[in-house]
Amino acid sequence: MDKETLVKHIDEVQNIIYKFCPEEKGDQKRVMEAMNYSYKAGGKRLRPMLMLESFRLLGGKDESICYPFMAALEMIHTYSLIHDDLPAMDNDDLRRGKPTNHKMFDEATAILAGDGLLNLAFETAADAMYKCDNDEDRLNMIKANRILSTKAGIYGMIGGQMADIIGESNKDITLDEIMFIHEHKTACLIESALCIGAALAGASDEIIEKMKEIASLVGIAFQIQDDILDVTSTTEELGKLVGSDEKNEKITYITLVGLDKAIKDQKDMSNKAIELLDEIKNGDSFLKELIISLTDRRN
Amino acid sequence: MDKETLVKHIDEVQNIIYKFCPEEKGDQKRVMEAMNYSYKAGGKRLRPMLMLESFRLLGGKDESICYPFMAALEMIHTYSLIHDDLPAMDNDDLRRGKPTNHKMFDEATAILAGDGLLNLAFETAADAMYKCDNDEDRLNMIKANRILSTKAGIYGMIGGQMADIIGESNKDITLDEIMFIHEHKTACLIESALCIGAALAGASDEIIEKMKEIASLVGIAFQIQDDILDVTSTTEELGKLVGSDEKNEKITYITLVGLDKAIKDQKDMSNKAIELLDEIKNGDSFLKELIISLTDRRN
Repeated sequence: MDKETLVKHIDEVQNIIYKFCPEEKGDQKRVMEAMNYSYKAGGKRLRPMLMLESFRLLGGKDESICYPFMAALEMIHTYSLIHDDLPAMDNDDLRRGKPTNHKMFDEATAILAGDGLLNLAFETAADAMYKCDNDEDRLNMIKANRILSTKAGIYGMIGGQMADIIGESNKDITLDEIMFIHEHKTACLIESALCIGAALAGASDEIIEKMKEIASLVGIAFQIQDDILDVTSTTEELGKLVGSDEKNEKITYITLVGLDKAIKDQKDMSNKAIELLDEIKNGDSFLKELIISLTDRRN
Repeated sequence: MDKETLVKHIDEVQNIIYKFCPEEKGDQKRVMEAMNYSYKAGGKRLRPMLMLESFRLLGGKDESICYPFMAALEMIHTYSLIHDDLPAMDNDDLRRGKPTNHKMFDEATAILAGDGLLNLAFETAADAMYKCDNDEDRLNMIKANRILSTKAGIYGMIGGQMADIIGESNKDITLDEIMFIHEHKTACLIESALCIGAALAGASDEIIEKMKEIASLVGIAFQIQDDILDVTSTTEELGKLVGSDEKNEKITYITLVGLDKAIKDQKDMSNKAIELLDEIKNGDSFLKELIISLTDRRN
């Protein structure tokens, strides 16, 4: 995909999701500033973009039904980064070249900003459901809201985060456990994106389930590609230090199956995702381009 | 209120809300253990109890519609305690005589357990809305879900928490700022309880608004009573050290208006709450008893 097309789509998504940011005012202004600081810190806005493109691919009509859920999903993604960066978690000082939330503000504010974004995600969805005056849309939103909450929680992303923390100190980690972490920590929010887009477009449960399979393959292939690039790329190409997994003695998919099989598995998963997408809707689409660029990336 | 009646009601509420606890299993088992540890650590279960009694007072029919929302509200209360106790916040080692979550587990797990409970609250509500097959109930739940999310977030409890942290280091804090903190940090979840009970019972927006006023008065009166007891009670009577506000040079409602006026204002608020409740439904009720015991307590 050319860079210009991607930037255009990022701008489109940002314009939509920024409308749901809190106004910074009141005695609690500081937490709103901290939330907006991280929410507006950039990034590719992949999850809301995937949601919108899933909706479009499946013939959804009025796109505005997606907007609150696009904003909500990005809030959940952002809160997870703020809490992940905390001293008690990854203890990172920088994210995307800027001070992390607790470095820019302080730890207490960063914890509250994360809580605030997670809560605001469901507040945004709750408000949309409450204001909806169309029975069919309301039912689709209720389905979307359920996907949003399940994929983000202990049976989804938070579960993956917990397993990842435990796995870091486990020298006997198995392939199943690594797959659990990739599936939950990374793939679940991708699944949330594609499935919510489908649900809001009024797709059948069968199609939603197929979107889930695609997203799961994409999420896991994306993570394995991370491991592969850490071994095969150069620091210049990747834009960050390579060889970090080996240096940290981190057990990855590659450690357990070998590089050649990892490359083959990753390619198989990416191909399978596209194959499933073609079954739903054959032909070119921005969603297909986006999925290819995610699983086929060199940086 | 006699102790036996209260214990009976606590048992009733606990039996209901424990059914929504996660089963402790999977690669992410640890976060579920941490969530259940704090969720089951005891307490008076005031918020879900108030919700159920509000529903009953207003003639709600099938009580089971309240159950997921009762559990969800207690999850939100519990997560707020876990995050409040963290080293970066109040840094408490004990809560209700037991190690706090981060002491029992570790800080990373406690952060995730808090996130997990907040998410599970909305997951529980989302699941209930999704499974509801009655149009009227579904609309009432959508209203309840909106109240739940708004009162817990940055325009509610989290906002109060932020203002409280800022206020602690402000020697020029005003009465308005103290009232903002009491209203948001404490009263908002009481408002959530009474208003959700009313919404689920199918009450009119006018009655829900009146319940909000009652809850606001009760929440603020409860907090001022805390300050009063810290000055007027004995350590034996209160079961914890008195005089802590003076020792910590904490500016309270009493510091700003004087003890006599604080006692009078607190009494006026409590009376006003009961007066409003009588306007909604005159006569004896467990809800009235409960409100009186909350605002008139000696410990």
